[in-house]
Amino acid sequence: MSTFVVIGGDAAGMSAASKAKRDDPDLDVVVFEKGEWVSYGACGLPYYVKGEIQDIESLVSVTPEEFREERDIDLRTGHEVVAVDPEDRTVTARGPDGEVVQPYDDLLFATGAAAVTPPIDGLDREGVYTLGSMSDGKELREYVSRARSEGDLRQPDEGPACQFLGTCNGPVGVVGGGYIGVEMAEALAANDFEVHLFQRGDRVLKSFSEATSETVLDHLDEQDVLVHLGASVEALAGDDRVEAVVTSEERVPVDMVLVGTGVDPRTDLAEAAGVELGETGAIAADGYRETNLPDVYAAGDCAEATHVVTGEPAYVPLALTANRHGRAIGQTVAGTPTEGGGVAGTAAIKAFEMEAARTGILDHDAARDAGFDPITETITAKSRAGYYPEGGSVQVTMTVDRPSGQVLGGSLVSEYGEGAVHRSHALVGAVTEGVAVDEFSNYDLAYAPPFNTTWDPVLTAAKVVDGTR
Amino acid sequence: MSTFVVIGGDAAGMSAASKAKRDDPDLDVVVFEKGEWVSYGACGLPYYVKGEIQDIESLVSVTPEEFREERDIDLRTGHEVVAVDPEDRTVTARGPDGEVVQPYDDLLFATGAAAVTPPIDGLDREGVYTLGSMSDGKELREYVSRARSEGDLRQPDEGPACQFLGTCNGPVGVVGGGYIGVEMAEALAANDFEVHLFQRGDRVLKSFSEATSETVLDHLDEQDVLVHLGASVEALAGDDRVEAVVTSEERVPVDMVLVGTGVDPRTDLAEAAGVELGETGAIAADGYRETNLPDVYAAGDCAEATHVVTGEPAYVPLALTANRHGRAIGQTVAGTPTEGGGVAGTAAIKAFEMEAARTGILDHDAARDAGFDPITETITAKSRAGYYPEGGSVQVTMTVDRPSGQVLGGSLVSEYGEGAVHRSHALVGAVTEGVAVDEFSNYDLAYAPPFNTTWDPVLTAAKVVDGTR
Repeated sequence: MSTFVVIGGDAAGMSAASKAKRDDPDLDVVVFEKGEWVSYGACGLPYYVKGEIQDIESLVSVTPEEFREERDIDLRTGHEVVAVDPEDRTVTARGPDGEVVQPYDDLLFATGAAAVTPPIDGLDREGVYTLGSMSDGKELREYVSRARSEGDLRQPDEGPACQFLGTCNGPVGVVGGGYIGVEMAEALAANDFEVHLFQRGDRVLKSFSEATSETVLDHLDEQDVLVHLGASVEALAGDDRVEAVVTSEERVPVDMVLVGTGVDPRTDLAEAAGVELGETGAIAADGYRETNLPDVYAAGDCAEATHVVTGEPAYVPLALTANRHGRAIGQTVAGTPTEGGGVAGTAAIKAFEMEAARTGILDHDAARDAGFDPITETITAKSRAGYYPEGGSVQVTMTVDRPSGQVLGGSLVSEYGEGAVHRSHALVGAVTEGVAVDEFSNYDLAYAPPFNTTWDPVLTAAKVVDGTR
Repeated sequence: MSTFVVIGGDAAGMSAASKAKRDDPDLDVVVFEKGEWVSYGACGLPYYVKGEIQDIESLVSVTPEEFREERDIDLRTGHEVVAVDPEDRTVTARGPDGEVVQPYDDLLFATGAAAVTPPIDGLDREGVYTLGSMSDGKELREYVSRARSEGDLRQPDEGPACQFLGTCNGPVGVVGGGYIGVEMAEALAANDFEVHLFQRGDRVLKSFSEATSETVLDHLDEQDVLVHLGASVEALAGDDRVEAVVTSEERVPVDMVLVGTGVDPRTDLAEAAGVELGETGAIAADGYRETNLPDVYAAGDCAEATHVVTGEPAYVPLALTANRHGRAIGQTVAGTPTEGGGVAGTAAIKAFEMEAARTGILDHDAARDAGFDPITETITAKSRAGYYPEGGSVQVTMTVDRPSGQVLGGSLVSEYGEGAVHRSHALVGAVTEGVAVDEFSNYDLAYAPPFNTTWDPVLTAAKVVDGTR
């Protein structure tokens, strides 16, 4: 009987464990998870903090009991793996009853990622939060609920956002203008906080196109988020408790700060065991997600993957890849070698009343590094037939290789509900298959007046960028 | 100076005329249109009849005056072309001032399609409508408005739907359960008519998957449309005015009937000129949309096109293809030979509070004829993260070739707004590029909780059908 040991009980780990056990019920599957939560939807935390999701347990797709009882997986929560010995093929875990040594035949590192610690003074002050775990989410929700219920709302003359809101909570600071920063700005603003968002560079959502960033920035302004661009945050000042965000330019008083400046892969354990990291700093793995050590796999936010456009390693720690790679490893371990597929760097976000998605390579330097000669065009078009009673607009950016026309990347933004995100599916396919933009512009996409114009905006974008080649 | 003559002033004709003139301003572009309306969105007519669009003029994207004055196109409305002489390169048109003979260098047949005349007695009775033209739309809207304003609503005991509606108009009959039939059922039901829909076969929307048809049928039931399946309509009975729909099984009293049983290509003029038709009965054309006659092109609802999956001719008279082929011809005529691209048979529909789309080959006989060994699976999945406060479900059918895994077709249905139609974009790409389903299932599609589950339903469908190969 063979044993599959998984380190880390979130998306990648539990997908692998479940799939391996389902495909090969004779396999012993042991999962070590240092916390108490497994298989939870971290992507849902902003909506829990916002108050749209009442019960944090609902973010858990499968409970530990279900894994143990229904799926027959030996899930050991509260167990932190402290060492891996690839010679002896054992892992050592520390749990409530002391250390256990567990032999393995196949091993998966699914250790995830940790919030980046930016070089800012005062990160340890009270009132400074990150949003990487379920307990982070709980703490933040408690803060938000408390601030709302205390009833000491400020008056219209007590802060810029309060002028619009009538009364408001806060002010609060969000450091970082990526997914977490923007989603948390929404969550906090929805709870009547005056939100200051600090972004180091000159735009929010910098992995998206410049046009998308601009559109979302305008929308954040409309929603009374106070965005501080080019803000180099130096300190979170205060005594015990944070009282202000201090940048090189200004000092903004705040009651609370959420730091969302990205994540770093958790690789210490793997490195100590002799697992090689890639050039991105995350664990390197081949198409089957196997590391340099035989029968040792890596998936999820601790690992890098191959970019479908460049063919080079990329670190894009997102949920679908974790699930997909975990599932492929489970299938491999159960006897059917399965490749996990590459990443296109696809991402989606709801930002207040807008939605946006991006995929592929948009950055011209990155495209040139990969040997392309990129050109980019952006169009804005109606999201439905002009005469249809509902509708808004969709802005589409496409980046293509000038000589070949190969679609390299796309970025879309629309009002929420007007389809920027689902429309991006078309571009993911084109990016993945390396389709030329003139061929793409001839795609027979679905059309009916309640859903688009005769030429869907993605086709219009393709025609326009093709016309400039 | 060269002259480009276009016969027919709707989507294909005006796209070609506009593109040709824009790319080569020295070209003389002459368009003959027998009616008064040009470049109108026929797809919007059901929403005009429904009353959601107040002004029928809003369906016109560019007016005749704009074509003449801003685009410098010699547009002659009220001119019916009665003969084409390909030897002399002339067309003869009959207009308000008699006959004109117009020489051409390049010629486009964009004569469109006409409503099929099914073998039913009484089609000429008063109160029997089709929906092929703007004037059809006006007449229907007038009927609906009149019926509503006359105020002689029937009472709850006067008809089955009236029981649900309280009071209602009608009863009215819709013959045909395709796009027009279903869209018109919605338009009429929204105006409180008791609607009887008669469909010859055993399901509505028969170009979609059986699962989609079933789901839409259930929804029509919920919406109190009285669907008569397997109904062979023999006569529309009455004196001057229609009084009943008579099938082989029953006699259903109605005040009005809408016949929507598909369209046939208008090919008489082309045939008379020696233009060859294809096996579908529509005008045959090559990749550049050129017919057997040199410099004579065909596009839009009068012409067939090449199916991207089978490589065989197909007759799929829809708006995007007309626009795309027209545009390509305009570009070709202006000096840059441009292929128009194939068709995937993609279509979308809103049906009351649901939306559906289909693409590619779903029918197993058709797939086998094209040399494939088809298998089909259908899944139903949540349209957004389970914990997200909004959301519904998406049902996805995928048909693939068993040995190769090639994606042949897809069909999707969801609640309106839950993204079946925009999600179909992903499947159109896969169908067009001949992507294998296992590769497709590894696509890095956009994910965020407000838009889908971590595995978008199209990926789940791909995994499931791949698992049965």
